[in-house]
Amino acid sequence: MTAYKDLMAFQRETEALSGVAGMLGWDQETMMPDGAADQRAEEHGAMANMLHARRIDPRIGDWLATADAPDDVAAANLRQIKRSYERTMKVPATLATELAKTTSLAHRTWAKSRAEEDVASFLPILQKVVDLRREEAAAVAGDTDPYDALLDDYEPGATGAELGAMFDALRPRLVSLRAAILDQPAPVVLTGTFDEAGQLALSEKLAAAFGYDLTHGRIDKALHPFSSGSGLDVRITTRTEERDPFNCFYSTIHEVGHACYEQGIDRKHLLTPLGAGVSMGVHESQSRIYENQLGRSEAFTSWLYGQMRDVFSDFGVADERAFYGCVNHVSDGFIRTEADEVQYNLHVLLRFDLERALIAGDLAVGDLEAAWNDRFLADFGYAVDKPSNGVLQDVHWSEGLFGYFPTYTLGNVYAGCLNAAMRKAVPTVDADLAQGDTSAATAWLRENVQQFGGLYQPTDLITRATGAAPTEAPLLDYLEEKFRGIYNL
Amino acid sequence: MTAYKDLMAFQRETEALSGVAGMLGWDQETMMPDGAADQRAEEHGAMANMLHARRIDPRIGDWLATADAPDDVAAANLRQIKRSYERTMKVPATLATELAKTTSLAHRTWAKSRAEEDVASFLPILQKVVDLRREEAAAVAGDTDPYDALLDDYEPGATGAELGAMFDALRPRLVSLRAAILDQPAPVVLTGTFDEAGQLALSEKLAAAFGYDLTHGRIDKALHPFSSGSGLDVRITTRTEERDPFNCFYSTIHEVGHACYEQGIDRKHLLTPLGAGVSMGVHESQSRIYENQLGRSEAFTSWLYGQMRDVFSDFGVADERAFYGCVNHVSDGFIRTEADEVQYNLHVLLRFDLERALIAGDLAVGDLEAAWNDRFLADFGYAVDKPSNGVLQDVHWSEGLFGYFPTYTLGNVYAGCLNAAMRKAVPTVDADLAQGDTSAATAWLRENVQQFGGLYQPTDLITRATGAAPTEAPLLDYLEEKFRGIYNL
Repeated sequence: MTAYKDLMAFQRETEALSGVAGMLGWDQETMMPDGAADQRAEEHGAMANMLHARRIDPRIGDWLATADAPDDVAAANLRQIKRSYERTMKVPATLATELAKTTSLAHRTWAKSRAEEDVASFLPILQKVVDLRREEAAAVAGDTDPYDALLDDYEPGATGAELGAMFDALRPRLVSLRAAILDQPAPVVLTGTFDEAGQLALSEKLAAAFGYDLTHGRIDKALHPFSSGSGLDVRITTRTEERDPFNCFYSTIHEVGHACYEQGIDRKHLLTPLGAGVSMGVHESQSRIYENQLGRSEAFTSWLYGQMRDVFSDFGVADERAFYGCVNHVSDGFIRTEADEVQYNLHVLLRFDLERALIAGDLAVGDLEAAWNDRFLADFGYAVDKPSNGVLQDVHWSEGLFGYFPTYTLGNVYAGCLNAAMRKAVPTVDADLAQGDTSAATAWLRENVQQFGGLYQPTDLITRATGAAPTEAPLLDYLEEKFRGIYNL
Repeated sequence: MTAYKDLMAFQRETEALSGVAGMLGWDQETMMPDGAADQRAEEHGAMANMLHARRIDPRIGDWLATADAPDDVAAANLRQIKRSYERTMKVPATLATELAKTTSLAHRTWAKSRAEEDVASFLPILQKVVDLRREEAAAVAGDTDPYDALLDDYEPGATGAELGAMFDALRPRLVSLRAAILDQPAPVVLTGTFDEAGQLALSEKLAAAFGYDLTHGRIDKALHPFSSGSGLDVRITTRTEERDPFNCFYSTIHEVGHACYEQGIDRKHLLTPLGAGVSMGVHESQSRIYENQLGRSEAFTSWLYGQMRDVFSDFGVADERAFYGCVNHVSDGFIRTEADEVQYNLHVLLRFDLERALIAGDLAVGDLEAAWNDRFLADFGYAVDKPSNGVLQDVHWSEGLFGYFPTYTLGNVYAGCLNAAMRKAVPTVDADLAQGDTSAATAWLRENVQQFGGLYQPTDLITRATGAAPTEAPLLDYLEEKFRGIYNL
């Protein structure tokens, strides 16, 4: 038992230090004075170097070689540590340094290229990022599919082939649902302005309604909403737009979903490798089910309508039914992060297919923009007008995040599965939501998903929670039923 | 040059990591949700362990052995690193761990004993803290005065004997000035209430008036005002009391003094051992000269009077002269942190003499309360009524901070020297202050003190700035002249 105890004591300090690095990131986006950026960059770099040195500490290998797992929690801890250690050890230090340097430069280049609508100026550094990530994938995974090696970092156990099959099944029904919706008359849209204080007050009420625990968290404003931290300190941010309070409200609910996952993990996993969400996909399943299947449901929006009238008086939407359509309004647009439930996954699928081809070497970086624009036209029916609305819109590739995009849609797929199972188990959900009460729904999610942290691998976790292996069918059924209802299809 | 470069690169990362640990402390006092305390304690512990491991890294010794100093900046960097390394290496790891554990327990015990007015329950753990600090002093300094070894950690180069002589010269004149003042009729005191928003708005205006740079800092509320950080990110906190806006204003100006010292250091010292204030005493000299010699001057308070009337309308003080008396009101009180300029140092001198005797072994821990009460009665003329107003009022000893108290009065002594020199060099100071303009005074301080960071040792720094070795005389002259004027003595 000594090896296991020593390893876990070392790991516990690493988890704590890693939490500190996360806090530093939170501070940067919320509190840090502008003039501190250069110093903060050095602080981040020093923390990253220190954490990397801990992650390749040879004692980890020694401990792993002799550690026994007396129970399933210990076994899962060892599995997580081993997985991370072996992956880290396989990447040569020079490559890790080169990747850090290159992505830092690529990120700055991307921001400039996007501002100048100049794809060509971004391609050379993107090529280098792709090459380095392929090199990393080869170091990690040897001869297996390099894309899978990258994907595995965000979604343990997932493969490009399986996700590809699932996504290929999603795409035609989403394209056709989208086309049918956009043939119909548009529902009312929100007009007028909504003061910031009112948005923030209602946003905080929504966070509380979804069970976010402010004694272990806080809400601040930031340019981009995010959730950060785990265990006893899980913070979220939100933002306001005068003409679009839904941006604030649904960003908040989305981040509350992420935060409640972290807050809902069994305390016995605190500061262990199991003490955080198990994968990006499962994380996104929680944020999306809170935001969409619960937060954008007809039942919950009927309650929200009353709340908004209390705060903003009559804001020009006649009744709950019209408000439901308004919240779930589907319209043309180029930008993934602004997309509705129906179109969002089409944006992701486009990126998944392109990045998989890039990493496989089947698509040249020089052909990326054309491939993007062709695919966009095919799925959405109109042409990309400028790079910032197309291939340069997302930050991810500049940061080397290949294999990350599909976890967004996988999260929606998981949310579809969980929603179906939860509604079977908790038949009162809609009646509760109409009162602004999410407690039964979120308790089911905590009980069946959140509490386990990293104990079970993603597909095992969803299978245990729903009684069946995850498929895209529940998500598609849910979307088709919901939007046929709203648009009278 | 390789050894020096390698050492400085290593040190730079240590400075950055140390800054992160400081940020964590700032967050804890300002932003952290209450429920995160246990997790934060582990994060602090992990950062402290990691920083300690860096500070005893044997490579530092190797680098120091061969590093050359091509200029005075490099020489000063090496001196600071050597000093810190040698001191850290002399303290056995077991003793360091025992000290950390014991002071943590002593701090909790002190809080409970103070709340229960029960000195006896605090004495056993205080005895252990004293013993461990004596053991540390012996490890660090061998046969020299153990108090000097502790003092040197806060005020490099200072000795108990020298400070004792200086403080013995201060005491009788302060006791007699205090007695003379309290024989006179009291000036008007502030009555009524002052809303928090108004206090915070004026507090921010005061911070700006004293040159605090908000692009490299921020102001938040906290239970106790403090300043933290250095270089490009120096933050302060303040607090408000409805009936006492001076608490907010002068806390802010005090912390701005600390913060401007850090902000004023030459950028070339950023993230080096010279990139922070050189000692506690010099730090306190800046906070006190901002707060008192500038902020509580007749000229500045005449401007502040107008500002307060703008914000709070007529608040019951008839004119600038009455307001000046009101700001500088001297009255009886037991608590050091609430004391005015005249009495503050008497509180410090009491602690200095007692802690020096404790560490020398001339005073038993069991006799501490009686010694405190006797001395208080002698200097202040009335008896301590309960331990929380006496020996249990300060947190310092529970945390093992022996040698820290005298730096408060040393800071006032330095402030007295600097004030006299600055007023000679900048004859327009009072005319400027009467307009709320501190720029000439603070520019002189930046030029002559702040910019150098850790480049010169404390007494050298003050001597260079003022043209003479520091003595208590200018402080005494200043206090006697000022308060004779206010109280018509």
